[in-house]
Amino acid sequence: MIFSAYILDVLTESIYPARITIEDGVFKEISPINMTDETKIDVEGLLVPGFIDSHIHIESSMITPAQFARIAVRHGTTAAVCDPHEIANVCGIEGIEFMIENSKEVPFNFYFTAPSCVPATAFETSGASLDASDIEYLLEKDEVVGLAEMMNFPGVIDGDEEVLRKLEIARNSGKPIDGHAPLVTGRDLDKYVAQHIVTDHECSNFHEALEKKQKGMKIMVRDGSSAKNMEALFDFSEKLNHLKKQDGFSIIPTEIIERRLHSPIFDFIVSDDKHPNDLIEGHLNKSIKKAANLGIDVIQAIEMVTINPATHFGLDGGAIVTGSKADFVIIDSLHDLNVLKTYIGGECVFDGENVLFDVGEVSVKNSINASRKSADDFEMFFDGDECEVNVIECFNGELLTQKATAKLKCKDGKVSSDIYQDVLKIAVVERYGGENVANGFIKGFNLKKGAIASSVAHDSHNIIVVGYDSEMMAEAVNAVIDNKGGIAVVSEDFSDSLSLPIAGLMSNEDAYVVSEKLDTLHRMTKALGCTLDAPFMTMAFMALLVIPSLKISDKGLFDGDAFEFIDVIRN
Amino acid sequence: MIFSAYILDVLTESIYPARITIEDGVFKEISPINMTDETKIDVEGLLVPGFIDSHIHIESSMITPAQFARIAVRHGTTAAVCDPHEIANVCGIEGIEFMIENSKEVPFNFYFTAPSCVPATAFETSGASLDASDIEYLLEKDEVVGLAEMMNFPGVIDGDEEVLRKLEIARNSGKPIDGHAPLVTGRDLDKYVAQHIVTDHECSNFHEALEKKQKGMKIMVRDGSSAKNMEALFDFSEKLNHLKKQDGFSIIPTEIIERRLHSPIFDFIVSDDKHPNDLIEGHLNKSIKKAANLGIDVIQAIEMVTINPATHFGLDGGAIVTGSKADFVIIDSLHDLNVLKTYIGGECVFDGENVLFDVGEVSVKNSINASRKSADDFEMFFDGDECEVNVIECFNGELLTQKATAKLKCKDGKVSSDIYQDVLKIAVVERYGGENVANGFIKGFNLKKGAIASSVAHDSHNIIVVGYDSEMMAEAVNAVIDNKGGIAVVSEDFSDSLSLPIAGLMSNEDAYVVSEKLDTLHRMTKALGCTLDAPFMTMAFMALLVIPSLKISDKGLFDGDAFEFIDVIRN
Repeated sequence: MIFSAYILDVLTESIYPARITIEDGVFKEISPINMTDETKIDVEGLLVPGFIDSHIHIESSMITPAQFARIAVRHGTTAAVCDPHEIANVCGIEGIEFMIENSKEVPFNFYFTAPSCVPATAFETSGASLDASDIEYLLEKDEVVGLAEMMNFPGVIDGDEEVLRKLEIARNSGKPIDGHAPLVTGRDLDKYVAQHIVTDHECSNFHEALEKKQKGMKIMVRDGSSAKNMEALFDFSEKLNHLKKQDGFSIIPTEIIERRLHSPIFDFIVSDDKHPNDLIEGHLNKSIKKAANLGIDVIQAIEMVTINPATHFGLDGGAIVTGSKADFVIIDSLHDLNVLKTYIGGECVFDGENVLFDVGEVSVKNSINASRKSADDFEMFFDGDECEVNVIECFNGELLTQKATAKLKCKDGKVSSDIYQDVLKIAVVERYGGENVANGFIKGFNLKKGAIASSVAHDSHNIIVVGYDSEMMAEAVNAVIDNKGGIAVVSEDFSDSLSLPIAGLMSNEDAYVVSEKLDTLHRMTKALGCTLDAPFMTMAFMALLVIPSLKISDKGLFDGDAFEFIDVIRN
Repeated sequence: MIFSAYILDVLTESIYPARITIEDGVFKEISPINMTDETKIDVEGLLVPGFIDSHIHIESSMITPAQFARIAVRHGTTAAVCDPHEIANVCGIEGIEFMIENSKEVPFNFYFTAPSCVPATAFETSGASLDASDIEYLLEKDEVVGLAEMMNFPGVIDGDEEVLRKLEIARNSGKPIDGHAPLVTGRDLDKYVAQHIVTDHECSNFHEALEKKQKGMKIMVRDGSSAKNMEALFDFSEKLNHLKKQDGFSIIPTEIIERRLHSPIFDFIVSDDKHPNDLIEGHLNKSIKKAANLGIDVIQAIEMVTINPATHFGLDGGAIVTGSKADFVIIDSLHDLNVLKTYIGGECVFDGENVLFDVGEVSVKNSINASRKSADDFEMFFDGDECEVNVIECFNGELLTQKATAKLKCKDGKVSSDIYQDVLKIAVVERYGGENVANGFIKGFNLKKGAIASSVAHDSHNIIVVGYDSEMMAEAVNAVIDNKGGIAVVSEDFSDSLSLPIAGLMSNEDAYVVSEKLDTLHRMTKALGCTLDAPFMTMAFMALLVIPSLKISDKGLFDGDAFEFIDVIRN
């Protein structure tokens, strides 16, 4: 294939017209063209390198890797470094190997990192655990390009032996280690960095990111569905304040400061989690545009999703350069960033209208090993008229919860929920063969009736349910069980569910179908009174014990500050 | 050691006051200080990372690595990646190992690359040759961080088997490959780059460098004694022209172009060769200042000799960051760049006045294996009154020569030099045990009497001599032989010599002593009529056969265009 086009060269940060030869999927020749009045350029638009998402948990998109590829190429994404952390908690190595195999079905560059923290804690039942020797096994695979985010930062800082062993194995492999150290600072951060943990995607403010960068880490600016940190990290007033502090040693001329203001400082833009309804709207293309609107040099923003991740992880691609895999995107302009076509290995995979490859159906092995439940499983018993309970208080869009208390009425020895105080019932049902059901109370959902349940519940992905009454909770959980996993909304008025039969996390359908079904479930949940923007996501994080202050696992109500179980009933 | 100072953080391109803790030679803690009116900062000046010369042939400084370290730290240099190419041509592996051992005597970060092209050609007698298995042996050493400049670019492009084997060994070692491909362009360059040759330091114009950069190479901007490319590569009018060409696709806003004009685009600043008289004046500190005067952002210029080379070669250092080796320099300001103090591994090695470490004398094994010569060895015989000869025509400051011819008088059957036409005699004397002496004629030196000789003669370093008459030529060569190598100026009026007994390339003295002696020899050569700025350097390159058009080795006069020997006498 030989054609002429304007190309964005991220290596010299310039644009020029070139004659491009592609052979065997590789850029064979890129020759600048001297333009005359007669020169006609074949391609309308600008060639830019294919976009690379350097940190994503595909499972959060609720679709398979192959289906993810089909939607991602519409947005100019040609590669993704995936941390299969969620499926690893459910199915261990087997789950990871499923992701790798499934990803090979499609012409898309999938890379993987080895999940470093499975399970998240010892206070929950997970489907699998990965020890140091599992990590070693995974890092030997060609498809695995690094150790995934080391979330157990207390373990790193305190020198936990198994954690250090995993890190040592990763260092010896020569593959980079991703970090996850929200708000870790000072000496603790020094200890974390000393283990050669080289990236962080958890920075939520400019100074946090700056300190990590100053300590040698590379910063992944997160612009996903769950967490959006770009505004904070590209905040110009913060940057200006920071630069102004240098006045004490006034040797940076004003014009240099002026230039610095448009430089992102940081290294990558990543999505981390991308929910299906967001994913159909856009991916990194949207993030680049957002960065440019925040004042970042648009070419440098593009480098954050092309040459920077390619260099860091040693991936083929990331630049339009001779010898590199011919992954590229034709956009209309650097201003609008509309994706006109996407090419991977020199082949057109998206022609502006259609995705030019298909995916087959995945044969499903049921991963939900739980018996159907009845209302009784969700009752809390108390001998008296009223009892005082500990309540998880959650907030819109936040993972952090607070400890609240409430006085609740009891009827026939059973503690009732109370919609006047907005105290509903919450439970986690074990899905790994045991019969654990832990019950508690939660504030913040504002459901007036019915129940919602999901087998997406970080990180162990047992079945979590929030509801007004035990009857509906049992029905919602049973709908999830019957579907081999998924999300269900149940009420006296209407019921519906999304089946996620692949590990209880992913659908066999494409992003559009899943997104539409999720929209329906969202509307139903709102119709039941819920005031949260993303009720299923908020619910999913109520089981993530490592985030304070009060959470719940299949083993009981958990105090994240004291890091121990506490009773639900305070009397 | 704990102190406060303003630091230049090359990772975030900013300056801030910090409390710095150094333990065991490593930055243990770097904590930003919130300045109040009472805050006193301990250090006057600015802490910047130690400078790294990422490509240098130490032998060209005519001093040992240990002595090089003593002068380099005065200029803020704390590390050098050395290609021991010169000594390798003389003594092979043994010479390289001498350099490595000698470098360990001093507290300075020496790294080495494995010379890839020894000998340069088959048309000369060298002291050693390094084959693929030697390269493999060298690359296994911890001190060796890469394969040195692949000068045999025709061999790479034509697919020479031994060359490709060396490159493959280097790739398998995981250590980067340095390039050397002057003016190579287009498809030839593609083939060169395809071998994963990742740097080039031979670029002499902006477009050459731009093409290489666009093809994925990293560009070493050379600012040394022999070659100075910085002005050409940092030429703003060239950059502006290049950027203006993008008008055809006018999507880069003017303010982005404006910012781009101060960015160097390229990756490293290197010296390649640094002669003793230049070295006592400055090193990379001078180059940074020069770059800033050319309009380059001074912080980005500093990155080219700190974090960029450290990242590329995987060296410890390059930034003032926790966990890194405490190599740093205190400068007075980013404007003047005067080095106040230099620290390596947390230890002060230069206090602003004195270098705080000493070096011992190297015990010398004579590497000059040549018998003393007589005038007859330098006669060219011709039976007649006049003969026509081929003449090497050299030019001030250039390595390229032209083919000239001249008619010369003959006396007693011997061809005479002719100062009216400026045609002098030149000869190369083998120094590796054989008795080769090749004679020829040269134009451009303008010596009116006497002779100059040197055992520094690229790349094989036989003894080269230029003179008015055979008597003085023999005396000059014998002075070099008696000195176990070096440079000699001989005439009826005065004579002097610099002894370079270490491989015939390096002195046992320090940079100041060698520089002073060289100055004396320069003055003497000028007094003999020579019009060249650097006669010994120009002479040294008359034996470098790979640079066209006419050169001379110990085996005869060599036509670099036809790549074959030719006769001196044309009759």
